Amino acid sequence: VVAPSSVALSQATVREGIVEFAVGQPDPTLLPAEALGEATRRALQRFGGDAIGYGAESGPGPLIDWLIEHLGRIDARAPSTSELMTTAGNSHALDLVANVFTRAGDVALVEIPTYHLALGILRDRGLELVGVATDGDGLRPDAVRDALSRSRAAGKRVSLLYTIPTFGNPTGRTMPIERRYEIAALAAEHGFVVAEDDVYRELSFGEPAPPSIGALDEGGWVLRMGSFSKSLAPGLRLGWLSGDARRIRAVLDSGLLISGGGLNPITALAVAEFAAAGAYEPNVAHLRETYRSRRDGLIGALREALPDATFDVPAGGYFVWLRLPRGLDSRELRAAAEAAGLTYVPGPAFDASDALDPSWLRLSFARYGSDDLALGARRLGTVVAARR
Amino acid sequence: VVAPSSVALSQATVREGIVEFAVGQPDPTLLPAEALGEATRRALQRFGGDAIGYGAESGPGPLIDWLIEHLGRIDARAPSTSELMTTAGNSHALDLVANVFTRAGDVALVEIPTYHLALGILRDRGLELVGVATDGDGLRPDAVRDALSRSRAAGKRVSLLYTIPTFGNPTGRTMPIERRYEIAALAAEHGFVVAEDDVYRELSFGEPAPPSIGALDEGGWVLRMGSFSKSLAPGLRLGWLSGDARRIRAVLDSGLLISGGGLNPITALAVAEFAAAGAYEPNVAHLRETYRSRRDGLIGALREALPDATFDVPAGGYFVWLRLPRGLDSRELRAAAEAAGLTYVPGPAFDASDALDPSWLRLSFARYGSDDLALGARRLGTVVAARR
Repeated sequence: VVAPSSVALSQATVREGIVEFAVGQPDPTLLPAEALGEATRRALQRFGGDAIGYGAESGPGPLIDWLIEHLGRIDARAPSTSELMTTAGNSHALDLVANVFTRAGDVALVEIPTYHLALGILRDRGLELVGVATDGDGLRPDAVRDALSRSRAAGKRVSLLYTIPTFGNPTGRTMPIERRYEIAALAAEHGFVVAEDDVYRELSFGEPAPPSIGALDEGGWVLRMGSFSKSLAPGLRLGWLSGDARRIRAVLDSGLLISGGGLNPITALAVAEFAAAGAYEPNVAHLRETYRSRRDGLIGALREALPDATFDVPAGGYFVWLRLPRGLDSRELRAAAEAAGLTYVPGPAFDASDALDPSWLRLSFARYGSDDLALGARRLGTVVAARR
Repeated sequence: VVAPSSVALSQATVREGIVEFAVGQPDPTLLPAEALGEATRRALQRFGGDAIGYGAESGPGPLIDWLIEHLGRIDARAPSTSELMTTAGNSHALDLVANVFTRAGDVALVEIPTYHLALGILRDRGLELVGVATDGDGLRPDAVRDALSRSRAAGKRVSLLYTIPTFGNPTGRTMPIERRYEIAALAAEHGFVVAEDDVYRELSFGEPAPPSIGALDEGGWVLRMGSFSKSLAPGLRLGWLSGDARRIRAVLDSGLLISGGGLNPITALAVAEFAAAGAYEPNVAHLRETYRSRRDGLIGALREALPDATFDVPAGGYFVWLRLPRGLDSRELRAAAEAAGLTYVPGPAFDASDALDPSWLRLSFARYGSDDLALGARRLGTVVAARR
């Protein structure tokens, strides 16, 4: 019998009495733990020892087959088997892509603002990060061109663009289809890989998401990274990478895959079993419904509590990107916010180039129910009002 | 219902009619698939949604607690919680260690011969690989000193030594305790990290393995990499890394861990559950018994079929390292061997420095029962005899 542990189970610390808007992670009560445990039991019973040896590098057949069908439903084009592989989640996918398609010292272009924790993954690979301006429609192609010119003039090789074009983190914004074509064309013209972070696609609250950049790409430079972390459970450490067959082959031929085999064969077969039982779609539908209601609750409360703040209503995903009124600095306000019982991530955390107005901040509506979200919004309103 | 897949489940291809000595992977019938499936079900029922969110970076408490006790039993020193973290298997552990403690262009020292598929992981990190001579007691400290001097003279930084000192791959050899102290001291003196691959420790056929280099290390330069791939199942993609608390902290602070959380929380909790039910020790005892019997079967058959070949009797692990008689080249003999119904890995594959006598080759006895192993040995004997 193992004694109660001194070590935590979860990454996030969620304190009593504080609305942790900073935590961009799902509510544990929304994760189908028992059903996934049961699916794992069934998968390992069905496939036996073959399921738990070194797995096929591209991922186990039953999941790959289902994913191909599934991507055909949720995106404009389904990959073939040679254009698809499983990953150990999106963070690991980005690490793999950087491993294979960049060299230390290269420039990686990232959005201003972008997912802050991706920056560490790229920096660990020795990449120089250059921020690229966005607007309400996401990444600006003219700003990409400028960044390419400046980097080239400085004698730098731009080998990667990291973008979250669909219900983005932290902005919740979505890039229109025309821009997606432009980005794919720019990548082919200038010869850099696009690492398209597409993890929020299925969490749409109204219209379905536009096609991924990867689905529109004709040049073979776009690698689309998907994940079950948002649609099912982060702890699976399971996602997928799709793109040009030669690029997928290059990732499969990396030392890590050759040595260790497929990245998460057991959880991959568990998800295949879960999906084969018809449980995947209802789970996503429930998440969409729940997060839409939470978004609505948060937005309504913010409008009341912070009438002078600026924010879009996100059409999907986890986040509201909010600009404090009167040029208040989100970094300076954080201590007062925490004392008042809420947290958030200050906008500058998402900016690799120190170009962002620090009155921006990110609120997550994934972790709490609407009542707690409204409470947090009112607390933020009080903190902001006190600075009048 | 998902149609039968065109994509494989397993990494290894094992052909009918061929004894695939080349496959260094366990027999699927030895992997406790159903029990692990059942353990996963129980773990997810017990811990619920908290178990399948983003996990604690160092791994879930129940597994960490059990691992600390377990390492205290199978090694000379148990790590503390701050000296231990879970990994996504040994290949990934090596990738993480290289990520944090080396820079592209550095030299990594590797044994001649060493685990061939680790070489790709290190090369992907931009490291220059320099082979270091071994003898029957493993890595030679004088050869390490020479390599350090030569690298320094060439203006290179040596940042890593990768070694498999216990029932090594491919040799099956084990480094005596005195050398372990020497290697740890050399690392501290010259300031390079030792990545100690310790995955075969528990597969001892007689005496228990000597203490790991990590357990003897006083300087804090040794990182010991362990895995459940050999003692339980490769498909778990689960291992651990232990060492100096500041070094473990540095790995936990890498971008990948901060972004994605703990590396495999679900399979980690499944293993904790499996172990708490008392199933781990009997499983390892069964593997030891089985592999010892297979080793004995293979060794006996080799002595009869290849009386002029040279090989040690490994005291643990998966492999027999064999030198063909009369200077026969294992690379040139491979086609004839395959035609005769067996495969092996030619020795030069394990050598990053082209210094090895090509009459060496590696045979794995993990994948097949004794009858098949004996059949393969007789076939090899026939192939070799035909070259007289």
